[in-house]
Amino acid sequence: MRGAVLYGPRDVRFEEREVPKIMKPTDAIVRISATCVCGSDLWPYRGISAVPQPTPMGHEYCGIIEKVGSGVKSVKLGQFVIGSFFASDNTCPNCQVGYQSSCQNRELVSTAQAPALRVPLADGTLVATPDVPSDGLVPSLLTLSDVMGTGWFAADAANVKPGRTVVVVGDGAVGLLGVLSARQMGAERIIAMSRHKSRQKLAREFGATDIVNERGDEGVARIRELTNGIGADSVLECVGTQQSMVQAISSTRPGGYVGYVGVPHGVELNGEQLFFSHVHLHGGPAPVRRYLPELIKLVLDGKINPGKVFDLTLPLDQVAEGYRAMDERRAIKTLLRP
Amino acid sequence: MRGAVLYGPRDVRFEEREVPKIMKPTDAIVRISATCVCGSDLWPYRGISAVPQPTPMGHEYCGIIEKVGSGVKSVKLGQFVIGSFFASDNTCPNCQVGYQSSCQNRELVSTAQAPALRVPLADGTLVATPDVPSDGLVPSLLTLSDVMGTGWFAADAANVKPGRTVVVVGDGAVGLLGVLSARQMGAERIIAMSRHKSRQKLAREFGATDIVNERGDEGVARIRELTNGIGADSVLECVGTQQSMVQAISSTRPGGYVGYVGVPHGVELNGEQLFFSHVHLHGGPAPVRRYLPELIKLVLDGKINPGKVFDLTLPLDQVAEGYRAMDERRAIKTLLRP
Repeated sequence: MRGAVLYGPRDVRFEEREVPKIMKPTDAIVRISATCVCGSDLWPYRGISAVPQPTPMGHEYCGIIEKVGSGVKSVKLGQFVIGSFFASDNTCPNCQVGYQSSCQNRELVSTAQAPALRVPLADGTLVATPDVPSDGLVPSLLTLSDVMGTGWFAADAANVKPGRTVVVVGDGAVGLLGVLSARQMGAERIIAMSRHKSRQKLAREFGATDIVNERGDEGVARIRELTNGIGADSVLECVGTQQSMVQAISSTRPGGYVGYVGVPHGVELNGEQLFFSHVHLHGGPAPVRRYLPELIKLVLDGKINPGKVFDLTLPLDQVAEGYRAMDERRAIKTLLRP
Repeated sequence: MRGAVLYGPRDVRFEEREVPKIMKPTDAIVRISATCVCGSDLWPYRGISAVPQPTPMGHEYCGIIEKVGSGVKSVKLGQFVIGSFFASDNTCPNCQVGYQSSCQNRELVSTAQAPALRVPLADGTLVATPDVPSDGLVPSLLTLSDVMGTGWFAADAANVKPGRTVVVVGDGAVGLLGVLSARQMGAERIIAMSRHKSRQKLAREFGATDIVNERGDEGVARIRELTNGIGADSVLECVGTQQSMVQAISSTRPGGYVGYVGVPHGVELNGEQLFFSHVHLHGGPAPVRRYLPELIKLVLDGKINPGKVFDLTLPLDQVAEGYRAMDERRAIKTLLRP
């Protein structure tokens, strides 16, 4: 079986990898229908996170159950399933309160850019659709594995409610799906911060009412102008840099909410600034599992079409070009078909 | 008129100060019934915050309205009133959502350790009791001006609800009143972190069910032991140091809430640690004004007795001893009577 392996900065290879096997009774093997490249894959791809050894890649997946361990009870052979990048038992105290990405037994799923994948804790991790979906729905269902669930969590953590004014910092796939989530949750005004024409267009399509080109202090000033000098009710931080976090906090009104889902890289928050900002701050790795049943229903009912974030589809063997296109911002997100 | 003036580290003097006058039509002059020394007064007293010039002190107050400006409508001569350390108009958008301490027109009240005080924005800042209260109620009513309102905000920001497990970091007056607040809000288990016998005793009296002596990593380990390895639902951070903030965050379960009200001094939060902690973080200068009507009622109805935090009462002219006793931790909190 061949799959993606990252060797170092900008060096992704499509090469022979071990065929996944059931290792524990709670495992399942999923035949991948589609996988993709994540914005977070670009951190090691760009050399910002270290890659100490050749590393199989990919944590977004959906597909057909091909094998299950003897202990698997809720998912069955032949079912179409979606799972999170964190496998979870869905029974521990953290899972029970909806934080499956902090499951006490969590395991990172990290080898999904391949034709087949071992998923640990299959019963707690995978959610099956009622039937095997049509091929046209696969891209949207695939986004639920991470980016759509993460955008949704950002909006939820930012307490988006009907009638609210929302700012989205970051115009990657997660930010764009944060726009879609905020719209779905009934926000009245959604301000997308983006300086790329194609992303602005998709943001509008997903429900953005305003676009702000400026960043940093200028971006904050522009948000304040648009919100009577007060700041937004809810701000979704979907980048993970120092600048984007400070921008998000500074764009929020006192008593407002920042939902942050960009994995922080070198972020240090000044306690005093945070204190006097009076914002609510919540975020972290999205508990995608919590939202899967609800989001699957929204996709199958045709209420949301998050698959539109894929503006490049490639056969899996061209995975290296998939990374390149995203790195060079020629593509928002690359879908890969084995 | 003589009042407290801080000249530099550990140098508080009781000396002649200007008699307060109505300066704007929205001002009121309050004849002080009682004032006190705040834990936050100890930052400049200890030289941790700079004191560039002789500075009148005091931001906690209650008393009788002696004069009002021509524009004051809701409070009247002779009424007993309590106000926050931040004067607020109570009408701006930030006030309307309950963040009066981020009022767009806020002014710090900072000269209350004196027989009389000018309060700006009197209508938006001061809340009158139905009648002039008996002298025995004055200490409890005085705490509503800051420490009780701040402890209450910490518990509110930490989302304390009936049945929850709560940790309180800090055994100063605010921490102790955080314990009282959590009890009043129905918390089932309240773990006070304290290593001082007299404070432990008062914490128990206010409703603490457990006392933890340890601090830092050991304190966190002890909290985890007491909470089945998960962490607390709600943690009140009532100190403001790097150690106490990290301790608070690390003691909270994923999805739990940290309410932080200790004014941060040199606190820097690591973005990645915060991200993976999965906590909700909210705090800042307490919007005391929001809670005044509710807390006044609780005091007048005899439901709470926060005035117990005052374990030293002095005439105002002994204000310097009041600071010393708190600095040396001989007193939890000093009440001053003009």
